[in-house]
Amino acid sequence: MKTVVYRGARRLAIEERDPRPPGPGQLRIAVAYVGICGTDLHVYHGDLDARVAAPAIIGHEMSGRVTAVAADVIGWSVGQPVTVMPTRSCGWCPACRSGHPHVCHAMDFLGLDSPGAMQSSWNVPADLVVPLPDELPLEHAALVEPVAVAVHDVRRAEVTAADQVVVVGGGPVGVLIATLARGRGARVLLVEPDPYRRAVADGIGLEVVDPHAIDVVALVDERTAGTGADVAFEVSGAAAGVATAVDVLAARGRLVMVAIHPRPRPVDLHRFFWRELELRGARLYRREDMAEAVRLVGSGAVPARQLISRIEPVEAATAAFAAMEQGGVLKVLLDLREDAR
Amino acid sequence: MKTVVYRGARRLAIEERDPRPPGPGQLRIAVAYVGICGTDLHVYHGDLDARVAAPAIIGHEMSGRVTAVAADVIGWSVGQPVTVMPTRSCGWCPACRSGHPHVCHAMDFLGLDSPGAMQSSWNVPADLVVPLPDELPLEHAALVEPVAVAVHDVRRAEVTAADQVVVVGGGPVGVLIATLARGRGARVLLVEPDPYRRAVADGIGLEVVDPHAIDVVALVDERTAGTGADVAFEVSGAAAGVATAVDVLAARGRLVMVAIHPRPRPVDLHRFFWRELELRGARLYRREDMAEAVRLVGSGAVPARQLISRIEPVEAATAAFAAMEQGGVLKVLLDLREDAR
Repeated sequence: MKTVVYRGARRLAIEERDPRPPGPGQLRIAVAYVGICGTDLHVYHGDLDARVAAPAIIGHEMSGRVTAVAADVIGWSVGQPVTVMPTRSCGWCPACRSGHPHVCHAMDFLGLDSPGAMQSSWNVPADLVVPLPDELPLEHAALVEPVAVAVHDVRRAEVTAADQVVVVGGGPVGVLIATLARGRGARVLLVEPDPYRRAVADGIGLEVVDPHAIDVVALVDERTAGTGADVAFEVSGAAAGVATAVDVLAARGRLVMVAIHPRPRPVDLHRFFWRELELRGARLYRREDMAEAVRLVGSGAVPARQLISRIEPVEAATAAFAAMEQGGVLKVLLDLREDAR
Repeated sequence: MKTVVYRGARRLAIEERDPRPPGPGQLRIAVAYVGICGTDLHVYHGDLDARVAAPAIIGHEMSGRVTAVAADVIGWSVGQPVTVMPTRSCGWCPACRSGHPHVCHAMDFLGLDSPGAMQSSWNVPADLVVPLPDELPLEHAALVEPVAVAVHDVRRAEVTAADQVVVVGGGPVGVLIATLARGRGARVLLVEPDPYRRAVADGIGLEVVDPHAIDVVALVDERTAGTGADVAFEVSGAAAGVATAVDVLAARGRLVMVAIHPRPRPVDLHRFFWRELELRGARLYRREDMAEAVRLVGSGAVPARQLISRIEPVEAATAAFAAMEQGGVLKVLLDLREDAR
């Protein structure tokens, strides 16, 4: 079987290994497609070396089919199309005990803390496997995990059809959030400086603007007769993105923090006080978000085809990561299908 | 009648003026006591000169008795003890139209934007007047307005009896928040560096610690078996206070921003993401918060006597402001009663 192994900063190796039978409680999955996430890119850059011990098989956005079922596992059959919820909560930490296992303090994140999806034969605990509809193309199904992120974010914002929503940052998750917020009936404005990403967003019917070309706060004020936006999502990771997301909000507006800001950012706390704004962190997703994501991708509510910029053979993994670095792409998938060769 | 007039930075004048009859829709109130708020101190320092045009009669925490009722006003009688809700919403701005008049964009704040309570005979729109129980001492009733702030803050935090609460900052509002959170059954830890304020808090049975002497985050972790606090209130206005309030919180913890931070502060947004924290701005109060505050002061749930450090005659206003500046006091009242002389 083929594996993509992280061997240290900027070094990926494509290695052949022998597949193993699934252990107790596991399924073996023939991985079809794996999406490259921004987190994978951080690993590739060596930014997560404190957490990801090379050599490591990374990847956590995937689709595939069950090829073997451990003797003690019931309810699954060989050939069944599946994806994986790559987060395993510990069950005993304060977050888990408080009913928030998705922010588990001792999370095992498959593809970071334990072997991930960039292997053509992957043994996975059966309780993390999520069934897919037969008719869903497996390349589209590789988007289920990032869609679950967006489902969780939109849920956290409590977006309604009455809301003006501003999404700051038009990478894959930003575009998905904008799509799902629009699906709830909200008016949505996406803010993204990259022309390629704006073109993709425009192509799926989103209203998207370049923050370097227009005054986003003035535009939102104009659209809302001076009220401001009900909801903003900060998905850019940039200091300027934080400022925009705060400044566009109406009284009692909700700002959902999706992006990772490794260092503290200046935040206009006076505005939070003055307008009684709310900031809500949003991380990962829960089981029900994965189920909703499968439904959304399966129903076509998520325009999966337009969001997938490229599908590369696993052998071209390094080139695919380089393409992600250079930008001008949205979602890039690796094709790990053994039968495709 | 006596008035305290702000005549420019660090200049207060005690001036004699002729009382006027109440205008249409107004009551005339014989002011008894006026509390000096941190905001009054900001005015005194000239920090609010862009908003407060000298000469101006300031003050907004008060108690008194009705002395005259305009002909078109019903439901009030001379001699009735009252306080005033000093905020007048415009009714037409986006915040008012959205049902959040207490964060009105064009707020008329009595004592800042229009004449305030530091006058022994005050004409006030009748719809802002709040009745007091006959048996409530008027010096205690002067605390109703800051208590309403604390009521609003605790409501905004949704404090329950199951919560571990941390209040960062033990000025009058911080102590009131701690008192009311405890009244809801929560376990409360107050954080305050000033020894006098700690002594007052200790005297009313609050648990209070010095952040310069102990590691607050470690203490909260110990108290909660590593879980963290459910709720934090930032009432200090200091950068270090913001950091403490963020760092003590459990997964999904709520941080209520009470203090005014004139400049943007560095905020650990990664922590917000990682633990799915919430930040909620809280400003002023609503009519129902004033009513609840009257009930709390009236019932003795708020230990008004212990919170009032000094009551000074109106002629000593400048000295009272100086005492506030020097610290070592909690609440300072001015006595404006005409019959006390």
